[in-house]
Amino acid sequence: MAGNSFGKIFVLTTYGESHGTAIGGIIDGCPAGIQLDLEEIQKELDRRKPGQSNLTTQRKESDRVTFHSGILDGLTLGTPIGFLIPNKDQRSKDYSNIENVYRPSHADYTYDKKYGIRDVRGGGRSSARETACRVVAGAIAKQILATRGISVIACVRAIGQIEINDLPVKLDVEQVEASAVRCPDPETTNKMVEVIMQVKKEGDSLGGVVHCQVDGLPAGIGEPVFDKLHADLGKAMLSINAVKGFQIGSGFEGVKLKGSEHNDEFVMEDGEPTTKTNKAGGVLGGISNGEQIYFDVAFKPTATIYKKQQTVTKDNKETEFQAEGRHDPCVVPRAVPIVESMAAITILDAMLRKESNQF
Amino acid sequence: MAGNSFGKIFVLTTYGESHGTAIGGIIDGCPAGIQLDLEEIQKELDRRKPGQSNLTTQRKESDRVTFHSGILDGLTLGTPIGFLIPNKDQRSKDYSNIENVYRPSHADYTYDKKYGIRDVRGGGRSSARETACRVVAGAIAKQILATRGISVIACVRAIGQIEINDLPVKLDVEQVEASAVRCPDPETTNKMVEVIMQVKKEGDSLGGVVHCQVDGLPAGIGEPVFDKLHADLGKAMLSINAVKGFQIGSGFEGVKLKGSEHNDEFVMEDGEPTTKTNKAGGVLGGISNGEQIYFDVAFKPTATIYKKQQTVTKDNKETEFQAEGRHDPCVVPRAVPIVESMAAITILDAMLRKESNQF
Amino acid sequence: MAGNSFGKIFVLTTYGESHGTAIGGIIDGCPAGIQLDLEEIQKELDRRKPGQSNLTTQRKESDRVTFHSGILDGLTLGTPIGFLIPNKDQRSKDYSNIENVYRPSHADYTYDKKYGIRDVRGGGRSSARETACRVVAGAIAKQILATRGISVIACVRAIGQIEINDLPVKLDVEQVEASAVRCPDPETTNKMVEVIMQVKKEGDSLGGVVHCQVDGLPAGIGEPVFDKLHADLGKAMLSINAVKGFQIGSGFEGVKLKGSEHNDEFVMEDGEPTTKTNKAGGVLGGISNGEQIYFDVAFKPTATIYKKQQTVTKDNKETEFQAEGRHDPCVVPRAVPIVESMAAITILDAMLRKESNQF
Amino acid sequence: MAGNSFGKIFVLTTYGESHGTAIGGIIDGCPAGIQLDLEEIQKELDRRKPGQSNLTTQRKESDRVTFHSGILDGLTLGTPIGFLIPNKDQRSKDYSNIENVYRPSHADYTYDKKYGIRDVRGGGRSSARETACRVVAGAIAKQILATRGISVIACVRAIGQIEINDLPVKLDVEQVEASAVRCPDPETTNKMVEVIMQVKKEGDSLGGVVHCQVDGLPAGIGEPVFDKLHADLGKAMLSINAVKGFQIGSGFEGVKLKGSEHNDEFVMEDGEPTTKTNKAGGVLGGISNGEQIYFDVAFKPTATIYKKQQTVTKDNKETEFQAEGRHDPCVVPRAVPIVESMAAITILDAMLRKESNQF
Repeated sequence: MAGNSFGKIFVLTTYGESHGTAIGGIIDGCPAGIQLDLEEIQKELDRRKPGQSNLTTQRKESDRVTFHSGILDGLTLGTPIGFLIPNKDQRSKDYSNIENVYRPSHADYTYDKKYGIRDVRGGGRSSARETACRVVAGAIAKQILATRGISVIACVRAIGQIEINDLPVKLDVEQVEASAVRCPDPETTNKMVEVIMQVKKEGDSLGGVVHCQVDGLPAGIGEPVFDKLHADLGKAMLSINAVKGFQIGSGFEGVKLKGSEHNDEFVMEDGEPTTKTNKAGGVLGGISNGEQIYFDVAFKPTATIYKKQQTVTKDNKETEFQAEGRHDPCVVPRAVPIVESMAAITILDAMLRKESNQF
Repeated sequence: MAGNSFGKIFVLTTYGESHGTAIGGIIDGCPAGIQLDLEEIQKELDRRKPGQSNLTTQRKESDRVTFHSGILDGLTLGTPIGFLIPNKDQRSKDYSNIENVYRPSHADYTYDKKYGIRDVRGGGRSSARETACRVVAGAIAKQILATRGISVIACVRAIGQIEINDLPVKLDVEQVEASAVRCPDPETTNKMVEVIMQVKKEGDSLGGVVHCQVDGLPAGIGEPVFDKLHADLGKAMLSINAVKGFQIGSGFEGVKLKGSEHNDEFVMEDGEPTTKTNKAGGVLGGISNGEQIYFDVAFKPTATIYKKQQTVTKDNKETEFQAEGRHDPCVVPRAVPIVESMAAITILDAMLRKESNQF
Repeated sequence: MAGNSFGKIFVLTTYGESHGTAIGGIIDGCPAGIQLDLEEIQKELDRRKPGQSNLTTQRKESDRVTFHSGILDGLTLGTPIGFLIPNKDQRSKDYSNIENVYRPSHADYTYDKKYGIRDVRGGGRSSARETACRVVAGAIAKQILATRGISVIACVRAIGQIEINDLPVKLDVEQVEASAVRCPDPETTNKMVEVIMQVKKEGDSLGGVVHCQVDGLPAGIGEPVFDKLHADLGKAMLSINAVKGFQIGSGFEGVKLKGSEHNDEFVMEDGEPTTKTNKAGGVLGGISNGEQIYFDVAFKPTATIYKKQQTVTKDNKETEFQAEGRHDPCVVPRAVPIVESMAAITILDAMLRKESNQF
Repeated sequence: MAGNSFGKIFVLTTYGESHGTAIGGIIDGCPAGIQLDLEEIQKELDRRKPGQSNLTTQRKESDRVTFHSGILDGLTLGTPIGFLIPNKDQRSKDYSNIENVYRPSHADYTYDKKYGIRDVRGGGRSSARETACRVVAGAIAKQILATRGISVIACVRAIGQIEINDLPVKLDVEQVEASAVRCPDPETTNKMVEVIMQVKKEGDSLGGVVHCQVDGLPAGIGEPVFDKLHADLGKAMLSINAVKGFQIGSGFEGVKLKGSEHNDEFVMEDGEPTTKTNKAGGVLGGISNGEQIYFDVAFKPTATIYKKQQTVTKDNKETEFQAEGRHDPCVVPRAVPIVESMAAITILDAMLRKESNQF
């Protein structure tokens, strides 16, 4: 009810303020008897962490996850998986400069309006640090999906005004990871790195678009009315910090086409119905049709900038605010594993929901 | 679990196939003692119905809703509101032409893959007819929100390649309803009517974009992590038939701005913190900030067209399909009350969730 | 949230006040492709209806259920099953005698405290009439369970101070239905009939105990911590009007035994582990063990009596109240199909939940 | 869905196997701005722990709870409260004697049937150790309820065949805690201690009945149909390890009374409607009526005994089993804080649900 759980059968619940002693979570409803590679989970966490290159923040968070339950000798027990990530960076910094000031385009003001109280240290619960827990659950979901040959791969499609021209029809994870900004095109990568370095120098920030592809999902997954597969995917993405938009398949561009241009005709291929095109993005009527699921996620530019901005205090006085400390000028590359994680959780959950409908 | 319910506290559950005896629903969790105008609900239903002008289908569905419970002498009892809309158009038409054929970009194929059985008449459960029930619940939610001075108004922003240039900062419902396509600009309306008439003649179809504004919502509404207010709004919209995209505030365009251009600075106005700009679209960290909430919803072109298309049969044979009967070449104007309804349900539900957090 | 839904995967939501135009419900999550015998559902409804003998009220409710969706040619579609039972007995009777009076041990007072408004006619939403909807869903669940060889049979174990001595280890539905009070022992039946006739003459009422047996359920069903199978069964039973107690297996008597007397030792039988005794009532650690599930449900005496009672009015004045009209002096025999229905829904739901845990 | 969460608004989710590294949980939906006494929470945990007297097991679990989030300077933040209790007793004992043997009346067999895998050490997830997490959440709920003058106090009513004659109409917590078995009557306490010492000597075990009283709850709390207040209380109790029965108010004894003997007549007292008697146990139609809520919970005798019992192995061979190690001959006194905790969580959740219904 308070919104800290995601999923209906494979359910992730998270807790944790940015600068408390730890963040963590519980995964309930993970099927039993599945072999998990715990090192692989840690690697996914490392993909999300700050300080991976000089493009991102230099804070050295070393997020180490420990599991307390639900896994025995690498096998899932079917019981809830409790996990914890200690907060290393919780030294008593001086937060007096933001304690009573509402940082523009941050959640300080709205948390105060909602709860009447908030942990001002590092953004508290509103910090994107919470997404580390999503990556833990997502890494598990990805491993489970992989046992069925289902892959979830995302990449950076655009940063600021730089956008890749030709997205690969099928992403290659090595190609993505080879790029400093997780863009599968080297030339675009260079341009993106350039603009990021430029805004960093300016004390400014950039947003971007993450593109994600799910391959191998069989037809028939998704609930058809309110919990359409792409509706749940959309919610999953929009729940990530800084996301302002989601589109699947042809998305906002598709509205410019006529039906005859947009419809995906069916043909037979290898004995299975398949579509000649995939404007739908792999979903018809909210249910997967066996084609690739692909979608885009829009991230606004990071709210934290080093320029002076006008704002107000908790006691309703106008003032100015300028950020200090080390922050990413562009978080979009680090958002790639988060997008993948939320997609994997959503897809696995939908598959388990389908099981519950069989008798 | 099977996805026919929406909301956490104000919960709508719907049932009904397009050509069964009736569609209907239950609204659970409606607060008690609220005066409802039942005629107003019927009027909202009428806004959704086909046959409102020569731009839309000429089927004369007269959707009359009857309420069976939860309301006494116009006052809500706090008990579930059961309602029913008889299906008038359920005469035994000949569906043999589509019984074994998967219509391109419809849900015929995916329903079969999911359930192994489906009601072929008029699309069955996958028909947009189901959205009539959403309008009933949405009309109730709108009335309840209105008692707090909260309005939810949507309009058509684009149809095909025709898009309004300057959207009013605050929509006027009369202005919207005065347009044959629910576009608040008369000149754009004319162009939209023109392209719709054109594709109708061609036997083709169009999509479009619906824009929605929520005014009067106080700050502090929304749950901050997975159930961010705009995540729930996004899911609500993406659950509507034919929707392929959702964006709030600056959306996909906003990613091209720098943080310094995108951030909404706070100033004091009438003794309340307010923002100079509203790139955020009224939500910070998933919680309303007291500014206008506005968002866009992308509808793909209607899948039903009168052109011959390639497809396959249930028993995996390639064939051709051409639609018959009367169908809208563009459903976007009729989608306006559906978007408003889903928005109103989502907002009201979020407000009730906030109540549950008080003690 | 408002408590009008039951189940997690096979979900029943009901609506309806006793004297509104209709009661009804939606069953969501019913598996697809299952053959239903609709006449059989009506027969179960008839088992619940008043006026079956001169022991029960003479009101001639003829509860006819109609289905609006989710079933085509007798087969479930996997989509929600909407159904409706018109209220025949809704003529505008005179309720002025109870409008402002809180009937003792009824829910008039508490509904007013909760909602600030209530439908005074026939108890409104608090009437046991609502349980007719449970019987519709239960009848469907029973049919689905029967396809797996699982039976759910209940009987009357006690009425007032009359209790059957030796309960059959396995109930026979014909034997139960042959009794005017649904007690499988003819001699006890006679005594029960006698006391009911006696209190009827006195204008008084009786309670009793319903006993229920579930046979054929395989081991491994139920969730182990908060949603233990017997916890969900207990909740299901306690949600039925007038129920004040629930016990499974040895129940309250079992606390008097030592562990060595109470433990059910395992032995092999037909190649399967089985227990020599069944004090557990078929559940260990909240999960079925393959033995018979049996439990008891305590119903308080009907609150409506024809004796003068002290009470208060809505405006806090002391007064007296004496019931009028026709009411059952003992509803326990009619509760048998309700108990079976809630048990069947709970068991089926638990089985579907187990499916959702497989991958 | 997998049953490791309890509550709808104030939601506790727990994780942890008996001999993993830790157990723990997340409380989501705790209202913001409430002052918590963390020492008091630890004291409640201490009430549950083994080794409190020579009547209980001598294992020295020192359950220390640590909080990781949701609380700042003793005030709740409205964000999820993550907590953890390390398992001290997790040294690699020899479990080879039970690894392949199904202990009678334990959950070993059913876990294997459900999951196909289980943690055999100390019962794994099926161990009552999990209830420590319930006590943490319950202690918080009790503190929150206390701010409204609501108390939740339980005691031991019966152990084996020894039962207290006259239960105090209003329990006194000091009186209860003064008893070695948490029975408010010194004489009965002595008898209970005696039988426990006796069965301990015999290597046998005992069950009992816990009685619980909730005072100060205002009228109007509870949802009226499926989530009746006593149905949720019943489920809460039946979800506790070893519980086989629940009754509220007059319970199973009440069925022997006539309506005229059982009905609680209303009178005015201090300007408020109140009932002359309280057979209902404080609930009418599932909603609190302002009187004391009281109920009984039946615990079966502990399954672990030191007598040789017949059983079967995982590979379907008959064998014998005799428990080793230190175990309580009677856990009922330690169950008192668990019953209180589950009651407090249920009551607080119901109160918050009522808030969600106001507008």
